[in-house]
Amino acid sequence: MIKVSIHITLKEGVLDPQGKAVAGSLTTLGFAGVEDVRVGKLIELTINDTDNVEARVEEMCAKLLANPVIENYRYTIEEGIVQ
Amino acid sequence: MIKVSIHITLKEGVLDPQGKAVAGSLTTLGFAGVEDVRVGKLIELTINDTDNVEARVEEMCAKLLANPVIENYRYTIEEGIVQ
Repeated sequence: MIKVSIHITLKEGVLDPQGKAVAGSLTTLGFAGVEDVRVGKLIELTINDTDNVEARVEEMCAKLLANPVIENYRYTIEEGIVQ
Repeated sequence: MIKVSIHITLKEGVLDPQGKAVAGSLTTLGFAGVEDVRVGKLIELTINDTDNVEARVEEMCAKLLANPVIENYRYTIEEGIVQ
C-alpha cells in the first residue's frame, strides 16, 4: 500500500481568479499584508499495486490529473504503509 | 516576505465525489491498483507583514480558507524569502 501526494499548481504567469478572490476576501476580513494568493490542488492517491509506482504516477499526472499547458505538478511517494 | 503553503483536505469519512470521479477515470484509463483518491486544496500565500504570522494564518484558515466542519488543514511557513 503506497500513498502518493500530488501537488498541482498553476504555472507562473497564468491568471488565478480564484486566488485573487481569496486575496480580496482576506483583505476585506482585515488580514493585512497578503500580497499574493495562488490556489492549487492536492490529490492524495492510495495505490495497492507497488510496481513501478513513480512512472505510473508521472503518467497519471500528465494524462489526467494536471493540465501540463497551464499547470505544474510535483509528487511525494510514501512507501511502506502497512495495512 | 513569507511564503505559506496551506493543505486543506476533507476529513476522514466525508464523502469525496470528485475523488471518486478521478478514481473512476484512472481505472478507465487503465491504471490498475488505484484504491482511493481524495482531492483537496493547496493554497499558497505570500505575506509581507511578518508579525505573528502563525496566529494569523491559523485564523485565516479557520475563518475563510477551510470549512472546519468537514475539512482539516495544515500549513508550512517558509520564512526568510528575500525579495
